[in-house]
Amino acid sequence: MSSTVIHRAEAQDRRFPLPQGAGTDAVHRISEYAFAVTRLRTDRGLEGTGIALTLGRGNPIVCECIRLLAGRLEGREIEDLMSGFGSFTRALADDAEMRWLGPHKGAVHLALASISNACFDLWAKSRGVPLWQLLLSLSPHELVALLDLSYLEDTLTHEEAESLVAGQLATRGNREGILTRGYPGYDTSVGWFDYADEKIAAAAAGARDRGFRAVKLKVGSRDARRDLRRAALLREIIGADALLMLDANQQWTLPEAERICDSLRSVNPYWIEEPTHPDDIEAHVALAAHIAPLRIALGEHVPNRVMFKNFLYRKATHFVQPDCTRLAGVGEFLTVSLLARKAGLPVVPHVGDMGQMHQHLVLFNHIALGHEALFLEYIPHLREYFEHPAQVSDGVYHTPREPGCSTDLLKEHS
Amino acid sequence: MSSTVIHRAEAQDRRFPLPQGAGTDAVHRISEYAFAVTRLRTDRGLEGTGIALTLGRGNPIVCECIRLLAGRLEGREIEDLMSGFGSFTRALADDAEMRWLGPHKGAVHLALASISNACFDLWAKSRGVPLWQLLLSLSPHELVALLDLSYLEDTLTHEEAESLVAGQLATRGNREGILTRGYPGYDTSVGWFDYADEKIAAAAAGARDRGFRAVKLKVGSRDARRDLRRAALLREIIGADALLMLDANQQWTLPEAERICDSLRSVNPYWIEEPTHPDDIEAHVALAAHIAPLRIALGEHVPNRVMFKNFLYRKATHFVQPDCTRLAGVGEFLTVSLLARKAGLPVVPHVGDMGQMHQHLVLFNHIALGHEALFLEYIPHLREYFEHPAQVSDGVYHTPREPGCSTDLLKEHS
Repeated sequence: MSSTVIHRAEAQDRRFPLPQGAGTDAVHRISEYAFAVTRLRTDRGLEGTGIALTLGRGNPIVCECIRLLAGRLEGREIEDLMSGFGSFTRALADDAEMRWLGPHKGAVHLALASISNACFDLWAKSRGVPLWQLLLSLSPHELVALLDLSYLEDTLTHEEAESLVAGQLATRGNREGILTRGYPGYDTSVGWFDYADEKIAAAAAGARDRGFRAVKLKVGSRDARRDLRRAALLREIIGADALLMLDANQQWTLPEAERICDSLRSVNPYWIEEPTHPDDIEAHVALAAHIAPLRIALGEHVPNRVMFKNFLYRKATHFVQPDCTRLAGVGEFLTVSLLARKAGLPVVPHVGDMGQMHQHLVLFNHIALGHEALFLEYIPHLREYFEHPAQVSDGVYHTPREPGCSTDLLKEHS
Repeated sequence: MSSTVIHRAEAQDRRFPLPQGAGTDAVHRISEYAFAVTRLRTDRGLEGTGIALTLGRGNPIVCECIRLLAGRLEGREIEDLMSGFGSFTRALADDAEMRWLGPHKGAVHLALASISNACFDLWAKSRGVPLWQLLLSLSPHELVALLDLSYLEDTLTHEEAESLVAGQLATRGNREGILTRGYPGYDTSVGWFDYADEKIAAAAAGARDRGFRAVKLKVGSRDARRDLRRAALLREIIGADALLMLDANQQWTLPEAERICDSLRSVNPYWIEEPTHPDDIEAHVALAAHIAPLRIALGEHVPNRVMFKNFLYRKATHFVQPDCTRLAGVGEFLTVSLLARKAGLPVVPHVGDMGQMHQHLVLFNHIALGHEALFLEYIPHLREYFEHPAQVSDGVYHTPREPGCSTDLLKEHS
């Protein structure tokens, strides 16, 4: 294998204005998605692209953190770097000055997402394989060496992580059919907060016709009757057998969440997503008890593996939604996936990357970790900006075949 | 009262190199303290100064967040602003784009600390009184209107907060003697991590001679025997009756913390501070059970009131150490103080401000909220940079009398 040395690491602030109403939720009424991009340039012409998801004018803050941290990649050979990536990312996350802005959360942690994801992209490209294939090719020891498991010593040691992966090796073949069948998707784009009823109805009918058996609706209206009306409308269109997820984007207090979820039982939601403040573990414990058998999903604003460990320990969520563009990249995503596997909970990523990287990661989670292939969120509205947008049809993500993490963006229109 | 209108809000990146070894702990071996400063300029010549504590090159990130957010203060009259400050800071914290970098944690939240503290400083100056006196002059309703109690509805409503304050009004007089006696201090500056044994011994003897009855030692060495040796040395010098606190700065895993705390029992520590990751509530619950009757202190890296609520609910700490330069300013500090009061736990601030603001806040906590006047951390090594450094002698903080929050800094040496 020829060596690939990182010559330069750069940050780019990319913004994506969205069509009217798209991307809106109970908190976010302006829809300018943004990626804080890390670009790694090498001596071989190969380039690595990493992304972290933020919104609008918050994005340059993350880009500046990338600039402060990514210099340590320059001069590093990619195979050498990745052979001890767990230790490397731990050292980066524990930068003595930058960790005072967290630790392990906020803008600095988002910068680590972007930096770390760029490394995985470059690594996969240098080996000429898609990310899912690269990850599947690693031994349990090599895989776990990619992870920073610090502060998980009471729950998931390196030895336990390795044996969890090794324990699934014999049955991998049974799960590889997913590569040809495709990984099921669910459609979030039908139910944005500001969409009129007619638009929701038309979009839901379209999603059903395109093979989706699961859709999501943004709730959290000031008038809870609006949420119920829209949810009932969606339920009517998709039918009783399809899955309907409701996403409150943290908008409710605990007392509100308890009351409103009671009224939403009539539409039989598959989960209630981000019902209240994402740091409030005990509020989720109380809510889970109150709304049972309804279930809770969260993760897009759980900042790191330590918080996820606490949510899982307290059984404060039922569906685990890590996002490799919000955690410290692919490595911490995999760590959370291992924690969830040990806890017996499904991983259904939040797709800050619009599914581009997560389409690889859920294949790995299913085949290598034995996670259920439940479904992966699908949000098409940044498709046009990617060099290799996810191929989704008949309700499934078709397995990506190009080398890397599928994160390369088309050049900016000048 | 004449009106005071904010004309400009500016951010300043102030750095403070420290003498060799000062400020070192198990994580931080380079000692460049930094304040992300908010300066509010007005039409009356008055200026408000707010600070947030960070380290070194992390500081410009927070300054940039201040610039992105503080513009909303321009044109606001200070009395008008402060009359609804709880709502104002909630809106600022929930800025739809910036909250995606948190929410309510990390660099953006630190910017809110600085901005919010500048408002309190300007407000107190415009009324010509020190912060403690301003806060004591407010009615329970006015006081609680300063606070953002969102996501505490299950624990501390506005009504409960008001009645908690009102319930202490009748007995305030009994506690006002603290204003003349002075508020006890404890000395953190004797036991920095990189200090040689001889330096620790001399500093501890000096602290004892200057009236301190409590000191702190930085632990978390790779070789735990070093911690024990230094702690035993300190105990010998200060005597059996003085209080010795040990601060591990998050360095231990849970299994390490359990083992090392067992060995440190012999020096009878008053508390163990930040034993492990500050997000790991359940690790603290487990450790508290293991080390009892030893007790835990933490707070400097607990990012917001919601996380504090969870720590208190789980009885995961015994001493609550909020820091108004790390939370979203004076308002969130007071909110956490109310939560702690309700939980029956003492508040012993971490002093990112070197005690300048907290000397006001602990007086208020004692007199108005009925908190025990335990002691306040004292770190003298930035004294020379303040216009009105805290006056500490005979082991106590003497009550500040100048208007404002005591946060004005001397002009930078050019």
